[in-house]
Amino acid sequence: MPTPELATLLVSCPDRRGIVAALAQVLYGHGANILDSDQHTDGVAAMFFQRIRFDLAELQTDKHTLERAIAEVAERFGMSYRLIYAQQKKRVALFVSRYEHCLYDLLLRHRSGELACEMALVVSNHPELEHAAREFGVRFVQFPITPETKAEQERRELELLLAERIDLVVLARYMQVVGAELCARFEGRILNIHHSFLPAFVGGKPYHQAHARGVKLIGATAHYATPNLDEGPILEQDVVRASHRDSVEDLARKGRDLEKVVLARAVRSHLEDRVLVYGNKTVVFD
Amino acid sequence: MPTPELATLLVSCPDRRGIVAALAQVLYGHGANILDSDQHTDGVAAMFFQRIRFDLAELQTDKHTLERAIAEVAERFGMSYRLIYAQQKKRVALFVSRYEHCLYDLLLRHRSGELACEMALVVSNHPELEHAAREFGVRFVQFPITPETKAEQERRELELLLAERIDLVVLARYMQVVGAELCARFEGRILNIHHSFLPAFVGGKPYHQAHARGVKLIGATAHYATPNLDEGPILEQDVVRASHRDSVEDLARKGRDLEKVVLARAVRSHLEDRVLVYGNKTVVFD
Amino acid sequence: MPTPELATLLVSCPDRRGIVAALAQVLYGHGANILDSDQHTDGVAAMFFQRIRFDLAELQTDKHTLERAIAEVAERFGMSYRLIYAQQKKRVALFVSRYEHCLYDLLLRHRSGELACEMALVVSNHPELEHAAREFGVRFVQFPITPETKAEQERRELELLLAERIDLVVLARYMQVVGAELCARFEGRILNIHHSFLPAFVGGKPYHQAHARGVKLIGATAHYATPNLDEGPILEQDVVRASHRDSVEDLARKGRDLEKVVLARAVRSHLEDRVLVYGNKTVVFD
Amino acid sequence: MPTPELATLLVSCPDRRGIVAALAQVLYGHGANILDSDQHTDGVAAMFFQRIRFDLAELQTDKHTLERAIAEVAERFGMSYRLIYAQQKKRVALFVSRYEHCLYDLLLRHRSGELACEMALVVSNHPELEHAAREFGVRFVQFPITPETKAEQERRELELLLAERIDLVVLARYMQVVGAELCARFEGRILNIHHSFLPAFVGGKPYHQAHARGVKLIGATAHYATPNLDEGPILEQDVVRASHRDSVEDLARKGRDLEKVVLARAVRSHLEDRVLVYGNKTVVFD
Repeated sequence: MPTPELATLLVSCPDRRGIVAALAQVLYGHGANILDSDQHTDGVAAMFFQRIRFDLAELQTDKHTLERAIAEVAERFGMSYRLIYAQQKKRVALFVSRYEHCLYDLLLRHRSGELACEMALVVSNHPELEHAAREFGVRFVQFPITPETKAEQERRELELLLAERIDLVVLARYMQVVGAELCARFEGRILNIHHSFLPAFVGGKPYHQAHARGVKLIGATAHYATPNLDEGPILEQDVVRASHRDSVEDLARKGRDLEKVVLARAVRSHLEDRVLVYGNKTVVFD
Repeated sequence: MPTPELATLLVSCPDRRGIVAALAQVLYGHGANILDSDQHTDGVAAMFFQRIRFDLAELQTDKHTLERAIAEVAERFGMSYRLIYAQQKKRVALFVSRYEHCLYDLLLRHRSGELACEMALVVSNHPELEHAAREFGVRFVQFPITPETKAEQERRELELLLAERIDLVVLARYMQVVGAELCARFEGRILNIHHSFLPAFVGGKPYHQAHARGVKLIGATAHYATPNLDEGPILEQDVVRASHRDSVEDLARKGRDLEKVVLARAVRSHLEDRVLVYGNKTVVFD
Repeated sequence: MPTPELATLLVSCPDRRGIVAALAQVLYGHGANILDSDQHTDGVAAMFFQRIRFDLAELQTDKHTLERAIAEVAERFGMSYRLIYAQQKKRVALFVSRYEHCLYDLLLRHRSGELACEMALVVSNHPELEHAAREFGVRFVQFPITPETKAEQERRELELLLAERIDLVVLARYMQVVGAELCARFEGRILNIHHSFLPAFVGGKPYHQAHARGVKLIGATAHYATPNLDEGPILEQDVVRASHRDSVEDLARKGRDLEKVVLARAVRSHLEDRVLVYGNKTVVFD
Repeated sequence: MPTPELATLLVSCPDRRGIVAALAQVLYGHGANILDSDQHTDGVAAMFFQRIRFDLAELQTDKHTLERAIAEVAERFGMSYRLIYAQQKKRVALFVSRYEHCLYDLLLRHRSGELACEMALVVSNHPELEHAAREFGVRFVQFPITPETKAEQERRELELLLAERIDLVVLARYMQVVGAELCARFEGRILNIHHSFLPAFVGGKPYHQAHARGVKLIGATAHYATPNLDEGPILEQDVVRASHRDSVEDLARKGRDLEKVVLARAVRSHLEDRVLVYGNKTVVFD
């Protein structure tokens, strides 16, 4: 048996009949073998979404021909689509400030094989975490930021991301608001972790807000960054139980466990091309 | 061995040394046997909270003498306190509109012995759930409410609650805002269930709000009712996982399970005198 | 637009290429509109599973022709399959003893529209729950069981199930072991709830076992009944936190909430034709 | 105000009246300030348990006098007790093999201040994780183990633990069974993490066992090690959802997150002197 050569097709379009059959037919007709297929129809929005993972190893034509055939079907049904070859691993940049828990978590997961990507870059506005990046053999670049230099530094960050051909930016407890241009250039490709169960406790110091309100659960939310802070499409959320015994520091400690797990799940879903954004919502295929 | 005669002492006061010893001493000195004792100090607010459950069966003096001794200690330490005898079961009124799930849930739990109270009354602005109350042998009283009659009907409801010597009002998906007078007269004794993870999605139609925002968890919150809608002290919260597959109806269905469990836990905590309110927060002893 | 006429096709077969395309093609070719499609390949067992939900309202041929076409595809790929029309609601029999919580839970969910089935029958070895069945307008039949009469009574139960054209038997905390013949005749169509996280604490009194072992979580498991007690294919499990404070009675109380929710989820999955059994395992499509 | 000087008193004894008062009195009488007190009575076993945390900063006598007074009360009530001064940080040895996730997790938590202990030692039967110990500045000692050398190596390990005055051994996914002597010498002071929801799936390869059984949740259990493998007193357990989509590798990946969190919670509870063992069970005060 030939070595598998995996690819993923992510599709969204207005709902109509025949889409599933048309896509299955075009793949089958070229010799691609469908391994996994998940589909969702939003009845209210009348939108259709599908994720197909398939093996190209025994393609009867070639990639170029298959791509043209898919493009034809896409045009016929008015589809937006992405075709991703697993061979081309996504290149990831991790943005951090001084908190190390999410950074170590992602680097360790990557080393253990959980995250199929290249860890290309750690970017920080502070120098403290250089040792961690170095330990894992990842390039570290510091961009010190002051209110005066912020715009200029973000321009330089953007240049670096482009030069390094970065596919995904992960804000791993990066304590800076990301500017509009970076958000726009990497739309749907910047993941942020917010340490509350959004939309509760938007903005700064959510653990302090949670403590003041006396909630009995605290949460964490992974979402795509947009210019509207904390309002981007949500990929993943989770909570943990709190009580009157928990100080703000206890909430922060419990929250760190949440932040790591929630962010890691979101990163993994994105890297495996399981996420489709529509409006301000996401479809995240299992 | 004599039949146990249980009582609970709930105390809150400014924190200072000697409180635990003073209370233990006064109870022990009168022959009361401490069965359970839980305590919490809020270091920031410098407040002390304690719940002591004890057995009076072998009291060497009498209740009156014990009560006076406790009152003396309370005065010495500037305590607020409540002394509750288990014999005197709390009398509960359930307020409902048309949803039956929380009503049945509480009535069934009561029948199975989970809730140590008297189910005295079901109050509704609609006639539909009379059959349920009747099936469980609970008095049902309807107060139809229109914008014009609301004030007058609430006055009559209040009269009924007082006439029936109600200790606790449970808003079991009661689709009416409770007026200021009722809130004031039953402060800390009206439990409400809100079908979101407060403070997210306050106000009407929280499942619609949750669906529109695209959250990946939905929640429910039990809190004491105050004149500020959805802002009262929280006793209990929980969540359940949601996904892009869930319509608003699916969220409502999943939410019903949450509402029942969260409300029931809060009712049970209140009935067992485990809750102390301070500011807008609660101490809920396990 | 014509009224939707829904059907579900559940398929399992040895994995090979072209299955997804073949099924999509046959449905599309007859004018059926695929609404939902979920698929799973077990790489180790080399087995393929799929659930397709589609709308027949605009079928260009007729059901009979479609059924023949599906049968041909099935033969070609060596498929086991079931084709279920949503119109034909499944008829359900609930088996109970004296515990009322699961019975009420299922009857209330049915009344609220959560469970798309006909509640045809409540069967019990005791008379106590007749009132509940009657309240919901469901036929109640008692089969008192002693060691001597068990075999004969089960024969009569089986006759009744057949006479009532029952599709699904739900053991809603039925405190009897179901005999081999009934298990055989309703293979894959008897759902049981066991009050532990199987395979921990098989057999009797699982809450006592859990208390003795000092576990920090208790569980519930819904599975298909087989002649090997507590070893049938698992559909659904969940847990709740316990502590040293919980007596056996507390575990039983917490467990009741679990049992209800876990059983209800399993019943719903079965009724919506989301479950495929293979070996002793299940595929449960979301 | 003087610097706080914290101590914890952990007590267990046959239940009788007056215990709470006697302990409160002896502490108060010497000028110790009770900060936290939690208590539990096991009615079935007729056993009493208490944890008292107090501040010695304004002691009116001295530690020695207080210790003698506590010893007297203990004798009077037949108490087992431990008195622990927070100043004396526990010294911890981490035992690992080749898996790095639990090791990093504990070292990172320690560095962030979550774990109040001295990380004195990393012991391993393999050389791979020396770099991690070194990165965090912790001494690393390798004891290669073969069936022939096992007994001798464990003797040397025990010597090292004693020489290093180790208070707690944490088996952080250590892939060796710990011998009887080490278990005996460190009874109640060896924490192990088992990657299943015990008592399900004892012994080797629990993720394989879970996959074969088709469970819908996987678990992790932290317990004290005893000579009876996987049967020691349980401190903490948790689970995560699994599905038919999860391969054994997926279960292992999901399980790693559980293992880390469950072990860390258990370590923290032990370090904060929240755990009392009786029979094969634990009281873990919040």
